Amino acid sequence: MFRELIENHALGNAIRLSIMLYLLPRGRVLFKELLEILEITPGNLDSHLKRLERENYVKLRKIIADRPRTTVEITEKGAEEVGRYLQTLKRVVERFDGIR
Amino acid sequence: MFRELIENHALGNAIRLSIMLYLLPRGRVLFKELLEILEITPGNLDSHLKRLERENYVKLRKIIADRPRTTVEITEKGAEEVGRYLQTLKRVVERFDGIR
Repeated sequence: MFRELIENHALGNAIRLSIMLYLLPRGRVLFKELLEILEITPGNLDSHLKRLERENYVKLRKIIADRPRTTVEITEKGAEEVGRYLQTLKRVVERFDGIR
Repeated sequence: MFRELIENHALGNAIRLSIMLYLLPRGRVLFKELLEILEITPGNLDSHLKRLERENYVKLRKIIADRPRTTVEITEKGAEEVGRYLQTLKRVVERFDGIR
């Protein structure tokens, strides 16, 4: 159980996990929206998103319309992996529920 | 919910969370035992334990008996914080259960 929790380095970080969980039911969100939800700095969010993009969990797109915006879209692989990670978390929670 | 997940930097890392979860029902374990459970390098484990010790979540003790050993003991504060983090994880899991 611990190894499953640890082996996915991309999701074994609470910020990246939160990004993926926020994306999961929404599919695509604005960079700005993630900044507001997570309350982290733009540089910090940017580096976590780049890490998730390298894993092919998200796609970043810069849109230049009235003013430049960046959208973050979850990929099929990203949705699968975060779904799997949630199952692991569920087992962790069930196993430790009521232990104290 | 995401902020609760993120704000505890010590536990927002899957290796440190796993260390604390392994300790929670046991109270005290050997460094060597954690190495075997987590399958990470001694240097990596050491740096995560030192981080947890700085937060006062664990106490490390070197025992020089027949041969030197290091024990890792959970503190009252550590047990409280991991208990609280488990409640956050439980809310996350419940909220996302069945979303895909």
